[in-house]
Amino acid sequence: MGIKITGIGSYIPSAVEKNEDFNNHLFLNSDGSTINYDNPVIIEKFKAITGIEERRYAKDHLTSSDLGFFAAEKAITNANIDPETLDYIIVAHNFGDVQKGKTQSDLVPSLASRIKHSLRIKNPRCVAYDILFGCPGWIEGVIQAQAFIKAGMAKKCLVIGTETLSRVVDAYDRDSMIYSDGAGATIIEQDDSDTGILAFETATYTYDEAYFLFFGKSNKQDDTEDTRYIKMHGRKIYNFALTHVPQAMKSCLEKSGEKIENVKKIFIHQANEKMDEAICERFYKLCDYPMPKNVMPMSIHKLGNSSVATVPTIFDLVINGQIKDQEVHKGDLILFASVGAGMNINAIAYRY
Amino acid sequence: MGIKITGIGSYIPSAVEKNEDFNNHLFLNSDGSTINYDNPVIIEKFKAITGIEERRYAKDHLTSSDLGFFAAEKAITNANIDPETLDYIIVAHNFGDVQKGKTQSDLVPSLASRIKHSLRIKNPRCVAYDILFGCPGWIEGVIQAQAFIKAGMAKKCLVIGTETLSRVVDAYDRDSMIYSDGAGATIIEQDDSDTGILAFETATYTYDEAYFLFFGKSNKQDDTEDTRYIKMHGRKIYNFALTHVPQAMKSCLEKSGEKIENVKKIFIHQANEKMDEAICERFYKLCDYPMPKNVMPMSIHKLGNSSVATVPTIFDLVINGQIKDQEVHKGDLILFASVGAGMNINAIAYRY
Repeated sequence: MGIKITGIGSYIPSAVEKNEDFNNHLFLNSDGSTINYDNPVIIEKFKAITGIEERRYAKDHLTSSDLGFFAAEKAITNANIDPETLDYIIVAHNFGDVQKGKTQSDLVPSLASRIKHSLRIKNPRCVAYDILFGCPGWIEGVIQAQAFIKAGMAKKCLVIGTETLSRVVDAYDRDSMIYSDGAGATIIEQDDSDTGILAFETATYTYDEAYFLFFGKSNKQDDTEDTRYIKMHGRKIYNFALTHVPQAMKSCLEKSGEKIENVKKIFIHQANEKMDEAICERFYKLCDYPMPKNVMPMSIHKLGNSSVATVPTIFDLVINGQIKDQEVHKGDLILFASVGAGMNINAIAYRY
Repeated sequence: MGIKITGIGSYIPSAVEKNEDFNNHLFLNSDGSTINYDNPVIIEKFKAITGIEERRYAKDHLTSSDLGFFAAEKAITNANIDPETLDYIIVAHNFGDVQKGKTQSDLVPSLASRIKHSLRIKNPRCVAYDILFGCPGWIEGVIQAQAFIKAGMAKKCLVIGTETLSRVVDAYDRDSMIYSDGAGATIIEQDDSDTGILAFETATYTYDEAYFLFFGKSNKQDDTEDTRYIKMHGRKIYNFALTHVPQAMKSCLEKSGEKIENVKKIFIHQANEKMDEAICERFYKLCDYPMPKNVMPMSIHKLGNSSVATVPTIFDLVINGQIKDQEVHKGDLILFASVGAGMNINAIAYRY
């Protein structure tokens, strides 16, 4: 028995926000003090670390649930299934539907209910719910889908990650350049093959780490609006990720019983290129094996960090030949991995 | 093998908001027009239908995750477990942490991460996530916990429902009198007994129903703030609930293989007393059996509708002898049932 991804789709917004579009921003430190560099220097340093050259923003009239719906339609078509046969619609996000120019998160009904409504699915036995699990939400949704299948509660699940981070960024914060909008969707089904999910690993670190990513005030101290934005302690997250993500990936691989030399691709959450490279290097070091070239396909240069959408989106791009010199072949062992708010970490070992 | 509730705790805020506290409110129709009755008449009619005399509001400095933490501590003590042995913390809510006087939902980190942090749990294998599923969120969390146990992914789960609806009500809307704050928490474990969850049923209706409960503008039409509040199409919800909830309860009971005459108590989501009575009556009619007296314990008169918290709270109150003339005994067959935003419905047949 295999539990696998039988269909995939992603929605990449068409509006491109380039690094130079931030040239006229007033960037401040978190204490409100001025940054002693001109914007072109700040942006160049930012690009050198994160790899991000540009990112995508959703059109003004669209919200996260719209993006998720667009990706879901593609995944359903790709899997060639009747949407009425879906047992679950699981939607990972972290801010709900936030309209352009507004600050309130709209969470009622759930985004899963909105997407099911837009898909015009009638079957009430198709259970729709949202999961909040930071950036690793899409991977966690896949893990939950396989749990429902294993428990005999489902045969077919639609798992979506969708986010419009552009709606929750502080324009006075350099970190605002990281965030992007997008959605990825997958159909998870059981079949008789030996492909699909081989093993998984999930962890939640909260003792010291719960508020490494948080909802906080603008760097502009005299902001009277009292609006909150996505904020992070970047250095702490970097150290945390480097300590715990490679270990989770190794543990997941061990559970699968597979050998490190058989890992063909690693699809990792993309928040920072240098961090992802360091995670990957440490993973191979832990496994005492040289890191192969080209093992980690990246889309961060053009797409930024779209939270829950990054992993299904890069996977979709690679299997559809949209990333140069990156391919996945039938039977390949691949790893999915993510880290984000919570702080949550997860990984899946997967036979394509 | 039984999957059962081995510990329970609820947090009922101490601040009482009585019906007469609404006497000086300006209530308007949803189109902004004046209501042709004085407030005492409006309030008396409200009480006659919903049964609500008073409700509880969280203290100003507390948020949903605080309430959930208080309930969780009690459930852990009641189950007499080491919190470090928990495999999952599942938190159902619908609006995140909303601070008093603010309008933004704070969802990062997840409420589950916040509660795990407050519980001072170190074990990273204790996975913490939030589920958004309308008022039936706590029951759905229990269904997910049993799925993880059945799939061999967990042995011990903490499932919490917590909400501060007082923070998202429109003061110009009569329906604001329905809503209340509170939290309920339960430990779900597996044991060798034949007690616990016998069967469950879940459904999501979105084709016509997705927006019966929604986030909408104030009844005060000249409100320039553009703030959104919890809103509902009460009549549509009433008809929907009466059509589908009794059927879901009957289907759940049939799955359990148990007989209607053995049902000792029904713990139903409490949003409206007359609606709950009508649901219960129709359920017994569908089962062709006379509805017993006292089968449905109620706390709505004093506690209002605290969303995801109502079902675990009334269950906690009854098993701890806090509701007059209501008891549950070992071996009793009981039903849990809920309906709410999504529109979602669920039910559990349970051997106490």
